[in-house]
Amino acid sequence: MKNDRNNTQDHALEILKKEVAARMAGAAEPRFALLMSTLVSRLHDTLAELDVTEAEWEAALKFLTKTGQASTDHRQEFVLLSDALGLSTCVVLLGEKRARGMAARRDDRYLATENTVEGPFYIPHAPEFSRGADIAADVSGEPTFYSGHITDTNGHPVQGASIEVWSGNAEGLYDVQTDPMVLSARATIQADANGAYSFWSIKPVFYPVPMDGPVGAMLSRIGQHPNRPAHIHMKVCAPGHAPVTTQLFVSDSAYMGSDAVFGVRESLILHFEEGAPGRTPDGREVQGRWWRAAFDFRLAGG
Amino acid sequence: MKNDRNNTQDHALEILKKEVAARMAGAAEPRFALLMSTLVSRLHDTLAELDVTEAEWEAALKFLTKTGQASTDHRQEFVLLSDALGLSTCVVLLGEKRARGMAARRDDRYLATENTVEGPFYIPHAPEFSRGADIAADVSGEPTFYSGHITDTNGHPVQGASIEVWSGNAEGLYDVQTDPMVLSARATIQADANGAYSFWSIKPVFYPVPMDGPVGAMLSRIGQHPNRPAHIHMKVCAPGHAPVTTQLFVSDSAYMGSDAVFGVRESLILHFEEGAPGRTPDGREVQGRWWRAAFDFRLAGG
Repeated sequence: MKNDRNNTQDHALEILKKEVAARMAGAAEPRFALLMSTLVSRLHDTLAELDVTEAEWEAALKFLTKTGQASTDHRQEFVLLSDALGLSTCVVLLGEKRARGMAARRDDRYLATENTVEGPFYIPHAPEFSRGADIAADVSGEPTFYSGHITDTNGHPVQGASIEVWSGNAEGLYDVQTDPMVLSARATIQADANGAYSFWSIKPVFYPVPMDGPVGAMLSRIGQHPNRPAHIHMKVCAPGHAPVTTQLFVSDSAYMGSDAVFGVRESLILHFEEGAPGRTPDGREVQGRWWRAAFDFRLAGG
Repeated sequence: MKNDRNNTQDHALEILKKEVAARMAGAAEPRFALLMSTLVSRLHDTLAELDVTEAEWEAALKFLTKTGQASTDHRQEFVLLSDALGLSTCVVLLGEKRARGMAARRDDRYLATENTVEGPFYIPHAPEFSRGADIAADVSGEPTFYSGHITDTNGHPVQGASIEVWSGNAEGLYDVQTDPMVLSARATIQADANGAYSFWSIKPVFYPVPMDGPVGAMLSRIGQHPNRPAHIHMKVCAPGHAPVTTQLFVSDSAYMGSDAVFGVRESLILHFEEGAPGRTPDGREVQGRWWRAAFDFRLAGG
């Protein structure tokens, strides 16, 4: 056969893309059919646009395989990949956009607290602590008193609200990253009938995302630092309301402008106020520096 | 804060996409920078186009994690995913397009044999068999004599050529899928100084791709049959030439028009000719039906 197939490859690629998309569109669930057919079409377009080689594609599949294999019950490497590529934040922002549309239709007085990425270290059913308790007694770091109110989007206290909270220790390591693993700086706290919550933990510090896996290797190859500005994670829930999964950022932390996972949102940046020596709001005696962080949450109707 | 952030989400998404792409573009290797920045931009666009929800994205990341975890030394679930989405064939076609461009510049008389997907069952360094040997003695199935010549793209015999070959048994199962695993219907065969090769194996049968993993579950959800038309894999190599990784398809097989991995190419469809009883080209005595399959390979300069 002479060189008469030169232009047929473009034709073959076009036919292939259509055939694959048509098969995916055959799924019985309309939403799944749309997701799959659109996603594969865009992937085909992108591979063609980049003229991806066999060797590059093989390397990509090996990377994805390793990323799955690095994942365990307490290490979500694919979540980390999604975070590091800004895809998690993209999905959160899309959710915010939908929520804001709903808020406008309901004519809510206030917006709900902004969500941001959950990250790979969330564990459901964190141990319960009473209001005002120290959830980080066995963790080094500067004591911080967290407090505030949980209201709805019209400013009324929310009944039955709870806060799940998790952060790293003074070295920026989460409990799930330590060996042996002992849960710490992680708790569930119930708000009172006025929506008030409070607890003691530490002032979080900046830290690098895990660098000993495939995603760490990718960040190195991109030449990007792996650091996240100091933050504490909170997930706020109440019956009949949409939960908020968010983080509060320490305003003067390093890396605030270059979060490795693109999670910083302006409305979530918080000034940590240094407490006066020996005088805490709940009458504790604290040696050395301590801080207070006040933040009110707003939950939209579910 | 009143509902004045309604339109800012689109703005935030646009800024996010640019910021992520800019970071990816910071990679020291220009090709890696281009691949990463383009890929993440297109992924961000696609997530926004589909207005993907948190729950959908979480399910996608879980699926990818499971796909990595289902992969072993002898099971390449991510390759299977790439195959089932037509992405492997897309990458092969892009390679063919580049190769045809080079062939045109060299003014080759003939085109090289078309490549198609390697699939998840290739193992490097398959056992060596001598020319004419039966590589499937311990496998059920109808005996088939495979033979042909390996030439370059100007029709001259290629020196030092070898063929790696692998296929399933009469039930469509590859050796690596059996327990205990015993290599069979898999071999490396050296061509002679004229580029001639020959061996006995079986006539392949159609079979389903592995359905007991995440990709199988995905195919079920799409409502697609998992079958591949009957084919035998071959990888043909020679010093100074570009290897060809391809498959020969049995022309009258079921599923020829709906290969689960989109691998069929017209130039690779082969008529298997039924042999006359008792008379084989190499003087063997064969009980029952047997077949002959003749195919010549052409390799382009490396």
